[in-house]
Amino acid sequence: MAKPRKPPALRPGDVVGVVAPSAALERGYLEAGVGALAALGYRVKVSAHALDRAGIMAGTDAVRAAELNAFFADPEVRAIFAARGGYGAGRILPQIDYAAIARRPKIFVGFSDATFVLNALVDRAGVIAFHGPMVAMDFARGLTPRSSAHLQRLLGGAPDGFELEAEAALRPGTAAGELIGGCLSVVVATLGTPYAPRFDGRILFLEDTGEKAYRIDRMLVQLRQSGALGRVAGIVFGAIRPLGGDELERIRIAEFAAEQTRDLGCPVLFGIEAGHGSENLTLPFGATVRLEAGARRLVCEDAVVS
Amino acid sequence: MAKPRKPPALRPGDVVGVVAPSAALERGYLEAGVGALAALGYRVKVSAHALDRAGIMAGTDAVRAAELNAFFADPEVRAIFAARGGYGAGRILPQIDYAAIARRPKIFVGFSDATFVLNALVDRAGVIAFHGPMVAMDFARGLTPRSSAHLQRLLGGAPDGFELEAEAALRPGTAAGELIGGCLSVVVATLGTPYAPRFDGRILFLEDTGEKAYRIDRMLVQLRQSGALGRVAGIVFGAIRPLGGDELERIRIAEFAAEQTRDLGCPVLFGIEAGHGSENLTLPFGATVRLEAGARRLVCEDAVVS
Repeated sequence: MAKPRKPPALRPGDVVGVVAPSAALERGYLEAGVGALAALGYRVKVSAHALDRAGIMAGTDAVRAAELNAFFADPEVRAIFAARGGYGAGRILPQIDYAAIARRPKIFVGFSDATFVLNALVDRAGVIAFHGPMVAMDFARGLTPRSSAHLQRLLGGAPDGFELEAEAALRPGTAAGELIGGCLSVVVATLGTPYAPRFDGRILFLEDTGEKAYRIDRMLVQLRQSGALGRVAGIVFGAIRPLGGDELERIRIAEFAAEQTRDLGCPVLFGIEAGHGSENLTLPFGATVRLEAGARRLVCEDAVVS
Repeated sequence: MAKPRKPPALRPGDVVGVVAPSAALERGYLEAGVGALAALGYRVKVSAHALDRAGIMAGTDAVRAAELNAFFADPEVRAIFAARGGYGAGRILPQIDYAAIARRPKIFVGFSDATFVLNALVDRAGVIAFHGPMVAMDFARGLTPRSSAHLQRLLGGAPDGFELEAEAALRPGTAAGELIGGCLSVVVATLGTPYAPRFDGRILFLEDTGEKAYRIDRMLVQLRQSGALGRVAGIVFGAIRPLGGDELERIRIAEFAAEQTRDLGCPVLFGIEAGHGSENLTLPFGATVRLEAGARRLVCEDAVVS
């Protein structure tokens, strides 16, 4: 497989498109997030139907897919940010024009439900995609200075890469591979479908929120039984916030993560600041990263945009 | 593929084994359920480690699997009932001795988390398995007279089969096939693994509880995108109780069920009294049933035990 391509860098003054591929937005959050994005020096273009509603989603599947495809096709739009997650991105995967995106790679940023889009962009359009903060969510609430600086360095093309520290190493070793994964419940929701990421030789990042510990375990068991955990080169867990923030559940989740990876042959890190309920530091999916369990760090040594 | 075999019938006076393949039990519920089972005229044998605890589960994986295998091997035990669901049965699927079960078919009854076991028994041991009430749950609370009579007729070998009525037909037509499926969240937790049921030409039964509508839709989309919904001969939805019993969510679930099956070529029924939050009428997985959308009924014309 060819390495995913780097999309062109984003710099202050560039136009950032904001789309809503998932759940319906609230105007106040959207406006607050757009303001925060503009304050970083980007010009912001919100898709025409971003505030549509069709049940719990931000408009019909056809409209949400069309707006995403339109921003990828729009030469003025330099990067695309998802407004929020929630639910709905998986439904439009068959309608995304991957061939067009492959011809004209562009930065896409999102996480949570947008995990569906991230892995599809890496594997179907062959382009690096960014697991990172969303507009009507993280930006509306305010990024931490570190999260904001990290995002801008990555998207702006910092040539010296980055390092993220993890809380703990669950399995020893060092591995390198293309980063994939995202929200665990979304990753498993692709298993058995054509939209599951390729796992072989990759570094699998997993985070989640609002799940009971038994569900986290059930999902990890499914990944194991599917063969995915045996085929990846390494695993790195981000933030996994239990339902209600319950402390006993948090401990159980950490125990299940350790148990389900204990007999694997690859290095495993736990607790980097990416995903729900963390600083949500941006990760470049499709880019080659190195996982060093001994130093408890995830390293990327190259620019991830062109 | 050979048709799943009928296990020997269960009659009053027979020994029923009660096992705990999933979550840890509470003694009070177990005793109440065992009493209710005994009151139907069965002799009840509870597995030695049924009240074990290992975290949230009823003992370690090794013990839970060993007790299930032991009851299948025990010539005195005529049928096996799961004590409860919750979580844990998926973890022991690789440790079940399907070859031994295939040589000596036996009635197994359970649902919810036991869905993992039901479909594995049908496809790996080639034996009919029963989606029905569990001991430390439905039996402890008390079966309705109809649910109890239906269960005893099926397991006792009533030669005239049964008919179940559905609330609505979502898609027209008539189809026949072997019944599979169960708890939707458990069925999708097998996708991409070797424990997913075969879907081709079968009648897919789906029920669930405690899920938000968007999750029900996400799971149906996964089944669609996996190709399963396009390959089944028919679909029948049982009870799908939304998280918290919320009425708007109940409506959304019905709408999503209709939307995700609208363009299929097979008949679809909605709302038979099987699964969580219903009378939980027993269904013989692996047995050939007929789905008649026009008459809104699911029909089985033959005895399902030998």
